[in-house]
Formats: sequence, C-alpha cells, structure tokens
Amino acid sequence: MTGTAVFDHPILSGLFGDEEIAPLLDAEAELRAMLAFESALAEAEADAGLIPHEAGLRIAAACAGFIPDIPTLKEGAARDGVVVPAFVKALRAAVEAPHDAHVHHGATSQDVIDTALTLRLKQVLPVIDHRLEHLVGRFEEIGEKAGDLPLMAHTRMQRALPFTAADKLANWRLPLERCRARLAELQPRLLVVSLGGPVGDRVSFEGLGDRLAEDLAKRLGLHPAPVWHAQRDCIAEFGAWLSLVSGSLGKMGQDVALMAQNEFGEVRLGEGGGSSAMPHKSNPIAAEMLVTLARFNAGLLGALHQALVHENERSGAAWSLEWMVLPQMIMTTAAGLRHAEALAANLTFVPLS
Amino acid sequence: MTGTAVFDHPILSGLFGDEEIAPLLDAEAELRAMLAFESALAEAEADAGLIPHEAGLRIAAACAGFIPDIPTLKEGAARDGVVVPAFVKALRAAVEAPHDAHVHHGATSQDVIDTALTLRLKQVLPVIDHRLEHLVGRFEEIGEKAGDLPLMAHTRMQRALPFTAADKLANWRLPLERCRARLAELQPRLLVVSLGGPVGDRVSFEGLGDRLAEDLAKRLGLHPAPVWHAQRDCIAEFGAWLSLVSGSLGKMGQDVALMAQNEFGEVRLGEGGGSSAMPHKSNPIAAEMLVTLARFNAGLLGALHQALVHENERSGAAWSLEWMVLPQMIMTTAAGLRHAEALAANLTFVPLS
Amino acid sequence: MTGTAVFDHPILSGLFGDEEIAPLLDAEAELRAMLAFESALAEAEADAGLIPHEAGLRIAAACAGFIPDIPTLKEGAARDGVVVPAFVKALRAAVEAPHDAHVHHGATSQDVIDTALTLRLKQVLPVIDHRLEHLVGRFEEIGEKAGDLPLMAHTRMQRALPFTAADKLANWRLPLERCRARLAELQPRLLVVSLGGPVGDRVSFEGLGDRLAEDLAKRLGLHPAPVWHAQRDCIAEFGAWLSLVSGSLGKMGQDVALMAQNEFGEVRLGEGGGSSAMPHKSNPIAAEMLVTLARFNAGLLGALHQALVHENERSGAAWSLEWMVLPQMIMTTAAGLRHAEALAANLTFVPLS
Amino acid sequence: MTGTAVFDHPILSGLFGDEEIAPLLDAEAELRAMLAFESALAEAEADAGLIPHEAGLRIAAACAGFIPDIPTLKEGAARDGVVVPAFVKALRAAVEAPHDAHVHHGATSQDVIDTALTLRLKQVLPVIDHRLEHLVGRFEEIGEKAGDLPLMAHTRMQRALPFTAADKLANWRLPLERCRARLAELQPRLLVVSLGGPVGDRVSFEGLGDRLAEDLAKRLGLHPAPVWHAQRDCIAEFGAWLSLVSGSLGKMGQDVALMAQNEFGEVRLGEGGGSSAMPHKSNPIAAEMLVTLARFNAGLLGALHQALVHENERSGAAWSLEWMVLPQMIMTTAAGLRHAEALAANLTFVPLS
Repeated sequence: MTGTAVFDHPILSGLFGDEEIAPLLDAEAELRAMLAFESALAEAEADAGLIPHEAGLRIAAACAGFIPDIPTLKEGAARDGVVVPAFVKALRAAVEAPHDAHVHHGATSQDVIDTALTLRLKQVLPVIDHRLEHLVGRFEEIGEKAGDLPLMAHTRMQRALPFTAADKLANWRLPLERCRARLAELQPRLLVVSLGGPVGDRVSFEGLGDRLAEDLAKRLGLHPAPVWHAQRDCIAEFGAWLSLVSGSLGKMGQDVALMAQNEFGEVRLGEGGGSSAMPHKSNPIAAEMLVTLARFNAGLLGALHQALVHENERSGAAWSLEWMVLPQMIMTTAAGLRHAEALAANLTFVPLS
Repeated sequence: MTGTAVFDHPILSGLFGDEEIAPLLDAEAELRAMLAFESALAEAEADAGLIPHEAGLRIAAACAGFIPDIPTLKEGAARDGVVVPAFVKALRAAVEAPHDAHVHHGATSQDVIDTALTLRLKQVLPVIDHRLEHLVGRFEEIGEKAGDLPLMAHTRMQRALPFTAADKLANWRLPLERCRARLAELQPRLLVVSLGGPVGDRVSFEGLGDRLAEDLAKRLGLHPAPVWHAQRDCIAEFGAWLSLVSGSLGKMGQDVALMAQNEFGEVRLGEGGGSSAMPHKSNPIAAEMLVTLARFNAGLLGALHQALVHENERSGAAWSLEWMVLPQMIMTTAAGLRHAEALAANLTFVPLS
Repeated sequence: MTGTAVFDHPILSGLFGDEEIAPLLDAEAELRAMLAFESALAEAEADAGLIPHEAGLRIAAACAGFIPDIPTLKEGAARDGVVVPAFVKALRAAVEAPHDAHVHHGATSQDVIDTALTLRLKQVLPVIDHRLEHLVGRFEEIGEKAGDLPLMAHTRMQRALPFTAADKLANWRLPLERCRARLAELQPRLLVVSLGGPVGDRVSFEGLGDRLAEDLAKRLGLHPAPVWHAQRDCIAEFGAWLSLVSGSLGKMGQDVALMAQNEFGEVRLGEGGGSSAMPHKSNPIAAEMLVTLARFNAGLLGALHQALVHENERSGAAWSLEWMVLPQMIMTTAAGLRHAEALAANLTFVPLS
Repeated sequence: MTGTAVFDHPILSGLFGDEEIAPLLDAEAELRAMLAFESALAEAEADAGLIPHEAGLRIAAACAGFIPDIPTLKEGAARDGVVVPAFVKALRAAVEAPHDAHVHHGATSQDVIDTALTLRLKQVLPVIDHRLEHLVGRFEEIGEKAGDLPLMAHTRMQRALPFTAADKLANWRLPLERCRARLAELQPRLLVVSLGGPVGDRVSFEGLGDRLAEDLAKRLGLHPAPVWHAQRDCIAEFGAWLSLVSGSLGKMGQDVALMAQNEFGEVRLGEGGGSSAMPHKSNPIAAEMLVTLARFNAGLLGALHQALVHENERSGAAWSLEWMVLPQMIMTTAAGLRHAEALAANLTFVPLS
C-alpha cells in the first residue's frame, strides 16, 4: 500500500484527493500525452519532409498501441533523471527498424515532458474552470434567495455592524470571478507546445523548426510558442493562479468555520464531521480543509517560484523541482473546489435575530 | 542608525535598495497618499451632498498643508494596530470645528490604507514597467550586435552543443516581455480605489456609495471597483507578478554568474566585485544579487499568499502580514531591475573559439 | 495508475522515492501503528483498572489480527476529516460485545494519530541516522585517501586560491555531524506518546491519566510527555531538522554539480545521466537531485511552520496541514541521503594540475 | 523618511519594531562588532607573532576610536557586494603606515561579517531568553491564581467539553519552555567565531590558524569552531528556532483572538485597539499581531533554508540571502515576545458560567 502523499493515499485521498482530476494528471495520462507528442511530431516531421512518410505512419501507429513497461521506465528515470531516454528507447523498439531511428527526431527530453504537461493541463483547466463557474453560480443562487438576510459583520475578530448575506457572498464570489478572467488571460501563454531540440535553438529541425512547432501545436490543440525550455515564467504564473484560487477558497473556509462556531451559529452546514470521542459534535470539515489547502498551496508556491532560477539551457535541478510541486498544487486546488462545492451546496445562513 | 532591513540600511541599501522606488513607497509617500484620499473623499462627498460644501473645501485645504506629528502617529499605530484613528484625529484637529466632524465621513481604516497603497502603486508601476521596457530593449540591442556569436549551450550543468548569443538572450528577454503583458492585464484590477465603509457594505454613504466610489476613483486617477476589503486576490496576484519578474531576472543572474566563471569565461562584465583578501578577483556581484533577490521574493510570495486567508470582514492578522511583505517584494523587484540594467549595460559575450 | 506525487509515482519514484523508508510511513504502517496504540492502551487501561481485564485481553487479541476495510476507512476519513471514528467503529465490530465499548476508552483521534506518527518516526529515525553516520564515514574515508589532493577553491563563483580536498569534504561532513548531534537532542522531545483524551486534559482517564500515559509510553517504547495536542513545536522542530539535513546535502550537490562541469572537471562521478538527444553527455543527476530536494524541503518547511498556529484545543486545519507536509519532508530527506550515498560512493576528486 | 520595512518604519515600528533589540542589530552595532573582531584579531595575531606587537597595539587603539564614513562604506558595499573591502581600507587609513598593512591580516570578508553577526547574537539571545523566561513565569502566575477556572475547550472550531484555564495555559507555556531548552542546546553551535581566511583553510595564518581561532574566540567571548564559511546549518537552525518561538506565540495569539470574540467573551484584555469608524469596538491588536508575526517568520524560514545551498567556498548569492532574512526573523520574534508580554500582563480569563 502506497501513501506518503495525501493525494494518492489509500485512506486520506478521500479527503485530499480528487477522483476527476487525478486520472488527468497521473503517470498513465502522462505516458498517453508523451505518446501523443511523439505521434504528432512524427506526422508533422513526415509532412515537412524531415523524416520519411512511411516512418511517420509507422511511428503514429506504434504510438497508438504502445504500452510501455513501467519498471523499465522507472529504472531509466532513476538513472537518467528523466524518463525520456528509456521511453524513447522502448518506443523505438516497438517501432522497429528501419523506422525506429526516426522516432523523437530532433527533439529533446524537455520537448516531450513539457508538452505532455501542457497537454494534460489542457484537459485539467476546463474542469477547474467549470467548477469555478459552478461555484460562482451557486453563490449567485444563494444570494438571490438569501442575499437580504441580516448577518453580523466582524472586523478584527470583533462584532462590528450588521450587514447582509449578499455582502458576505460577494467576498467569496468576486475573487473567483476574477480568477476566471485571469485564467482566460494566462491560458494562451500556458497551453503551448514545447519544441526546441537539444539546446533549444530548433537547429535540429534543419531550418523548419518554427513551421514544425506551429504544425505540431495545431495537431495537439495547443498554441505555438517560441522555445521556452529555460523560461519557466508561464509555469510559475500558473502556480500563482492556482494559489489565488485555493487562497480565495481558504478565505471562504475560514469565514464558514468562524460562522459555524457554536457561539455564533451564523451558518448551518450539512452532516459529517464526526468525532471519535465526542458524539455531540459536528465538525466543519470542508471549511477547515479549505484553510489547510490554501496554506499548503501558498507554501508550495514559494517553492515553485524558486524554480524560476533555471540555470543555463536546461536545469535538471529546477525542472525537477517543478515536477515535485506543480501536480500537487493542481490537486490541492481541485480538492479545494470540490470541498467548496460541497460546502456551498449545503450552506444555509442563519439570520441575525 | 537604523537598519534591520536591508532596503533602508545605511550601508547595505547601496546593494539592496533603490533610490528611485524607495521614496515612492516610504512613510512620507504613504501619508501624502492618505491625505490625497481624505481630500478627494471630502470633495466627492461634498459634491454628492453627503457633507456640507464648506466642509469639503476646508478639509481639502487642510489636507494640502497638513504635516502630521510622526511620534503621535507611531503611538497611535502601536495602540490601534493601524495608524488611521490617530491620523484622522490629528487631521480633524487641523480642520477644526465645525468641519472637523466631516473628515473621513463614512470611511474606514481599510479604505484609506488600501487606497493609499494603490495610489503609490500607480506611481511605482510605470517606473518598473519602464525598466522592463528598457531592459528588453537593451537585450534587443545586444542581440542586434552580437546575436550571431557562437556560445556553448549547457544542459544539466554539462556542455551540450553550440548555439548563439541570440538564443541565450531570448531566455532573458521573452519572460520580461510576457511580464509586461501581464502587468497590462492585472493593472486595472490592482489600481482601484477602496471604499467600503466600516463593514464593506457602503451603507455609511447613504445609498450613494457606488457613485461616490466612482467619483473618488476618478479624482484619484484610479479605477472604480466593488468593495475589496476582505478580497485580497489582486494584492496576491501582484505579489506573484513581482516574483515572476525577479525570478526571471534571477535566471539571467544565475546564467551570467555561471558564464563568468573563470573556467568558462563566456562573458565579460564591467568592473566591481573587489575582495578584501584576494585582489586578483572580480566577483560578479550584480549577477549574484539577481539570484539572491529572486530567491527572497519567491520566499516572500509564499508568505503573501498566506494572507489570502483573510477571515471575516477585515482581518487584522492577514492585513498586517501584507504590510510586512508587499513593500519588500516591490523593493526586491526594483533592486533586481536596477542590477539587471547595470549588468546588461556592461555585459559582453565572449564567443566560443 | 496513481501518481500525482513523485514519491509514490510509478515511474518517478525511482528518482524521488525511497524503498526503505516508504513502507515505514505508508498507510499500512500507519494502521499497524494505530492498532499498536489501541492494543497497548487497552492493556494499560486494564492494568490500571479503567477497563475490565478481559476487555484488555480481547482488544489486544483483536488488534493483533485486525485487517480493516480500506474503502470504509477512506469514506470515514472523507466524512469526518480524520480516519479515527471509522477505524474505531470497525475495530469495535471486530472486538465484539461485550468488550467493544472499551476500545479507545477515554482517548481521542489525536491521541491515536499522533502516537501512530511518533511510533513510525521511531522506526524512521534510526534509518536516517544510520545513513548520516554512513555518509560521514564515507567522507572520512575519502579524506583519508584523498584529503591532501589540491583543488581550486571558488568564492563568489570565481577561482580563489588552491586548497585541499579535505577542506571541501569538511564542508560536506561537519553539518551532517552536527545534524546527528541535533537529532540526539530532539529525539526525546519528538518520540513521545500522545494521550490527552477529548480536550487534552486527561480527565477521561479518571485521575489516572499521567500514570496511564507513562505506562502506555513504556509499552510502545516511546517517551512519556505532557499532553501536546495543540503544541506542535516538536513536529515543527523535526521538520526544520529534516530541512537542515537536506539543505546540507543540497550544498554538497551544488558543489558537485559545479565541480562536474566539463570546464572544471574537478570531480569524476560514476555512470548514469543519459540524454535523449545528446549521447555524449553524462549528467550529474544525483547532484542535481540533492539541490532539488533541498529547495523542496526548504519550501515545505515554510508551510509546516504555518501549522504552529494551531488554534484552540485541536485545529483540524493546522493538523491536516502537517499531514500534507511532514511525510513528504521525511521522504525528501531520505531520498537525499540515498542520492548522497550513491554520489559519495562513486566520487573521485581530480587534483588541480 | 525611510520606511519600506516595518521594523524601522517611522510609524509602523511602534507596532512591529522592538526598541530593545533593534539597536543590538543595526548598522552601528554591526560596525562596532566588526571593529571588535579586527581589534581582537590584531591582538591575537600579535600574541601569536603573526604581526608585530606594535601593530597589534596600534590597530586595537585605532579600532577603539574609529568612526567610519558611512557613505563611503555604502558605496563600497554596492560595488563589492560586501562592506568589508571598503571598511578595511578605511580602517587601514586610520591605522596609518607602517602598521596599516597588518590590519585584517589573513582574514577574509566572511570572517569579519559572520563573527560580527554572532557577536551581536550573543547580546540578543539573553534578551530573548529573558523574555521567554519572564513569559513562562507570567503564565505560571496566572495559573496559580486562575488555573482552576473552568473554560470551554474547542476542537475543530466547535465547543467540545469544559476544561480549565490551567490546560489552556499549558499549551502556551510548554512550547516556550522547550524553546528555552533548545536555545541552550543550539547556543554553543551558534555563538562561535568565524576565522577561515580567503578560502576557509586557515592557511593564511601560517599553521597557527586553529590556535588563533581559539584565542580570538576567547577574546570575543565566543566559542571556537572549525571554519564554517560554507556551512550554514547553524544559521538555518537558529532561524528555525526563531520561527518555533514566534509560531508558539502565534498559537497563543490565535487562541486569545478567538476567546476575545464578543460571542465568546472568554477572556478580557486591556485597553487599545481603537477603530476609526466604530468607536464601540476594542480590537485584540496584540493577539492578531502574534498571528501575523508567526506567519511572517514561517514564510521567511522557508527562504532562509534556501540559503543552505551555499555553493562552493563562499556563495555571494546564498550569503546575501541570509542578510535579507535573518535580522527580520530576529526582529519578528522579538516583537512577538513584546506583544505576548503585553497580552499576558493584561489577560484575565472569564470563567464558563
């Protein structure tokens, strides 16, 4: 049984995981995306005359049915610091001579790994955005029904003056709406193909690199972009966006946890939150989780931005740091949205009497 | 002599400080901005009929000439956790009866402090953007002259293949160009007025709050916005942007420090970097500083995003955390741009022989 | 296939994981430790006369053979924010009437979860300490053989003056020796039993709480301690220690990566580090990984110390944050030691000529 | 008027600063400590026969009366990345020929800067420890008077069961007691002299380096130690300790802020905490500040541990990062202790009725 990280933990993943997002990010999805890259690259290179037409067909066909041997890949990743050499070797064996030599033509590890990331993000982002949209809609619904209810505003942890549920809801809704706008802005920068060749100058594509990158992007449904091997700002920007979302949800969670204090009773939540020792209690689990997830993501964001210092043309150290951090940030944000939806679905304001 | 923080340190500010940005952010600038807020608020409220016309004139006149007593303000901030109560009291004394009661009408501490922040950011951002523009231009210039020079690309700290200075410069330039685009996107969200009244519902403005906020924004040259007392996403977004800039510069700094290694000799820098023990050395100070500043800002970003969990209608704890972090992040970014400019001004590539 | 976190990732765990430590930390180990707690608690409570002698025997016997249903526990954890209610319910069912009611007598979730943590740490720490000892020994060995070799010292990324391999080795060895000393100091604070009852006052143990805690500690091979439910300093201290270790290894990794630059050639490493595009390269993977792991742990440490703000008598939010962070910090440190051992085993200094 | 950082801010330093600690850390104190180092070094070197007896006397005399020109030092620090070259040059001018050449004999920048740090820490630590002791004593006093008062325990933000003020106080006191024990443990590692010479091998002291380091340590009231230029674990350990203290105080602050909620009324604080808009409010400023300071220090700790990756024999980048972070961490901790003392002095528990 695995389980040092909460997201894939056999028990804790019920709390911290996300069954919709996890399969879009996991090793299987990554391998599928890597094969999609190699397949589309071969086809684009065949079209451009960089590799034989036959090789393009054969490689694409092999990619469609290729199931790599995981232990071999694991061993390769441990040895080479990245799975790509072992992966390409195995794929070449599947493609067989004489076309095997044309697999991964002109490309480098970072091309396939980074494109496999953005390909998966292309699937993840609509899910996250849809959850944001849904949550915003849910807050609007609550507001329509209960926006006029009087609540007590608290500033600096003290009772201030009465205000309304609509004011409270605005604090939860508006940051999420702005996050949706931000996502629309950053998406064209993020969902781009990576194609640079060994040192990021596209020289290995014999003068056809820019055209190839454009064609490859088209085939993969990504945006074309200049080489970004050593330019990690769009990754770091995305991490910050994730933390903005989870932080905004954390604010909502903290509000709800405070309002749900028995001494306040300003909000009623659904069931759940049992205690092993005190059966009379009903703990605001989802609200607490939102705070936890916000603080975790904020901490990880600090680590991710360290990876901006990506030395030279490819930094094994900085790049690997992204691998450790970014998937967790996505899962954290997704779990937050899941908990926020559950919270919002069951939340009822108790008006000030 | 003060000096626990490097930015204002009598000695180290030469290295870490920024003489152009510091006066735009310091206590004096903040007080000026606070007075601009109170003055414009009074004028707008007089126009709206919320306070007497005479009071508006008198308050604006008083704000123009008001020099607060700093020790009194310091004492007030220590007592109240925010300078505003002492500041308003002092300003009311300057305005004198009968108009004194109309000072700060309907507003709350967060309105004046947050607007005084965005007012200063409105001055800071063009300076930073101008430096970015200048740096981008400098990289283009170097590229025009020396873009074809052959350099050795390094991946994973090892010699890879030759490429050109233009490829190296692209890694330094493109993230900064994207940061300029991002700044244009976030600026309308950031440079907004804050006007919410005690609990952020604008009720204290007797139904005229939205119109007043719009008028106030116009007078101050800011964008109008819904109340954002407890919505800190635009602040956190800006912090992330600052770290994107300093991180991108940190990558350049790390590259230059590596290229300037004697064993590499791929770059010639100007003078400077003396050693107290080894006169033969010339240390790449500016390049190192870029790395330092990038790592510092990345760390602070993690702290700033903790402040997204801003409980209730105003969190003293989370708000104060922003005060500790954000000005430093701005100074760090500004110092980075200053060092990057100096570095770029003197940098010469030594072609691969 | 799971795999959003690198430690348990089907492919990347070869690089980031640790096959010796992972099974000491995973869900299965946690359940075993939880059963050890409940078993020892029942025996101690039977001895103290708090529960019937028969119940103690029966519970201990049931714990010995109990295999919980994981999906049930996962569902419970998702609902209650902690696995304990579902776990205790399932264990009670296994114990059966009339003894079932005596399971977990007087204890609370945090007692079992926190003790299950320290029980696993008790197994993890000797492994880590042994690796530290071994690494220190390896550096001593290298020093005995090659300590006199002249190397070039570099300060501020520039050639400074010649010094010796012994000087370099001291920089890698001494921090680890100090970390061993620190571990000896903190261990008695960390490897303690947690027993507080619902609100941490041991009242549920009817005046026998202190004696019970001492007996329980003895049975479990832990130190006794006052209740520490809401006092997380020893956890945070341990996290800092982990980061000290991985940071000290990160310094070594950065040194080696720099010395292994082709332009330096100051060190020869073993094989490995293949490139998918450049067969001539040999990348210093282990050295890079040490830097990655150091930076990751430093970032996580910032998150872990946020959990010191553990509100009230038990904070779901802060406690859960520890669960997200601490196991990863341990794995990161362990992986670093593994890579450092591999690096040290194959490292040869190339003397300055 | 300066003021980008809160600690030295003309207004906010009342809230965030510490008038007792600031002068022990500031630029003036640093220069005094640097002169103490150079003076003691010269005397020790004269004793050891490394420099003429006369030179030792003359240098010590010059150090006693030397007042450096700050603008010159600032310019030097900006140029060289460290103040030492300019400082030594100025000190040599004050010493005058023929003894001037013997100033700073065999030493390097890091020797004087790092020793000047530990010399100041030697003054700071007793103040901090004394505050800890005093705070622990205050909690004991409150406990003696009011320990039996019944309070409501809260777990997961919900009412749990009654317990006593003594239980609450234990959560605040015990971590501080452990921090005192930790300080005693780490102090001998931290309060050490730094003497390594240009590349940290003490070769510049002609075989007398170890003896010299011991003599120097004795003269300065520090512990002797092997060269630690590139071994930053003791600095990082100290940073973690500071964050343990401020985090433990943050827990207390969060507790008090929650107990002081009007809906709870479990604690009465003294006066203070005025609002600019709501005169009826009394905000728990000191309690909030403890949370702010805890979160800030936790964030900075993440940045400080990045500096463990101190490449080669001296890293300008990593060393400068410490300068940015460590003084702030000390000030943050000191301010926290100041606020905690004020809070504890005025705090009264309101028993559960």
